[in-house]
Amino acid sequence: MSTDNSRPTVLAIDTSGPVAGCAVLKDGRIVHQIAMNHGLTHSETIMPAVDAALEGAGLRCGDVDVFAAVAGPGSFTGVRIGVCAAKGLAHAVGKPCAAVHALEALAMNFYGFDGLCCPILDARRGQVYCAAFDMAAGMPKRALADAALPLADFLATLPTDRRLVFVGDGVPAYGMGVREALGDRALIAPANLRDLRADAACLLAAAKPDTWVPAAQLQPIYLRAPQAVRERERREKEAR
Amino acid sequence: MSTDNSRPTVLAIDTSGPVAGCAVLKDGRIVHQIAMNHGLTHSETIMPAVDAALEGAGLRCGDVDVFAAVAGPGSFTGVRIGVCAAKGLAHAVGKPCAAVHALEALAMNFYGFDGLCCPILDARRGQVYCAAFDMAAGMPKRALADAALPLADFLATLPTDRRLVFVGDGVPAYGMGVREALGDRALIAPANLRDLRADAACLLAAAKPDTWVPAAQLQPIYLRAPQAVRERERREKEAR
Repeated sequence: MSTDNSRPTVLAIDTSGPVAGCAVLKDGRIVHQIAMNHGLTHSETIMPAVDAALEGAGLRCGDVDVFAAVAGPGSFTGVRIGVCAAKGLAHAVGKPCAAVHALEALAMNFYGFDGLCCPILDARRGQVYCAAFDMAAGMPKRALADAALPLADFLATLPTDRRLVFVGDGVPAYGMGVREALGDRALIAPANLRDLRADAACLLAAAKPDTWVPAAQLQPIYLRAPQAVRERERREKEAR
Repeated sequence: MSTDNSRPTVLAIDTSGPVAGCAVLKDGRIVHQIAMNHGLTHSETIMPAVDAALEGAGLRCGDVDVFAAVAGPGSFTGVRIGVCAAKGLAHAVGKPCAAVHALEALAMNFYGFDGLCCPILDARRGQVYCAAFDMAAGMPKRALADAALPLADFLATLPTDRRLVFVGDGVPAYGMGVREALGDRALIAPANLRDLRADAACLLAAAKPDTWVPAAQLQPIYLRAPQAVRERERREKEAR
């Protein structure tokens, strides 16, 4: 078991979007990574993948220093699956958890890009979950706050004097619209860099030990209230 | 089975370096990816990973349009394992193979980077396998030919007016030397973008259908003769 917090052993789980993935960081290397975009139920696929990753890395749960979960924004159900899996594993062995921000993890795919990295996730209802990160120095530096917006509203908030790269599961639906609006100034991530990868979540969790929390305190990151909550609020408002 | 060569179904295998990996590209998406850096024998780990990837993607071998292997430069034994695995699978179902260049695949990790991407692989004997690719337009454009050189000789060939990013399995051994020589102008790939990933190999194979060959014609890419050949040549020379 590592006790050197500058090079922690991290297991990261991501089920926040269409990809179910997990990765193990050990001694500064990604020793195992799995990413599945099958359209299957994350709750069924993620734990066998975690098992395979730990076994491949030659680790037991107790060897992991921190259990990271991509905590959102993303699919409500997906976020809960990943957060609960990380909580359960961490609780069982008395280790901390780390909540990794989905949009920041996506930006990690464009480490060192000279412009802004703009993750867009399909948030349904004609909106994208979006943000922008300055990547020129390497690690993501936030340039725009998280928002849930129609694509055109998001594009209108972006600076006109920077190169931009768009990543995330919103690319298949919205990439063409981005290119039409912004032309060559906008780069669209290719398939190998488009999706959230759990290896990026490992690095973010390792870089921020100050964000590690006891398992019971790990929380999802929501940008909108879940649909069930929104509908209850609407009904309560109408009933008044 | 896809018959649309603009969006082929690709299985890519990489055992050319310390990572054993495979990935499946289907309908323009990476549907499954596995990357293992366990220090275990690639010949034992790669076929179960291929099985898992195809099963996860819901595919049989016959559904794959092209079998790609990272064909080098890299470990002689590793390259042969990957090339032979791809040949065997492709031959069994009568499909073509594609040889993916290891350094070009590594450059794909820095799609859109405004400077040059410089892959360095540990070639032993104090040398790195190296090259440089201009990434500003997205896909890699070759800027320097492949070479096997001492690090200092490679650095001396690089332009002084471009940002540079160094990737590959040479980074752990040589990254510090790069930073000392080049300072802030050199970026070192973080762990999530440092290693060759089979998803990048999928994209390169898909982008170049003109490079697909019958299985029997798939060849490794060597920059140096294997040690056994070098030693035989040395002995023959001494015997003359």
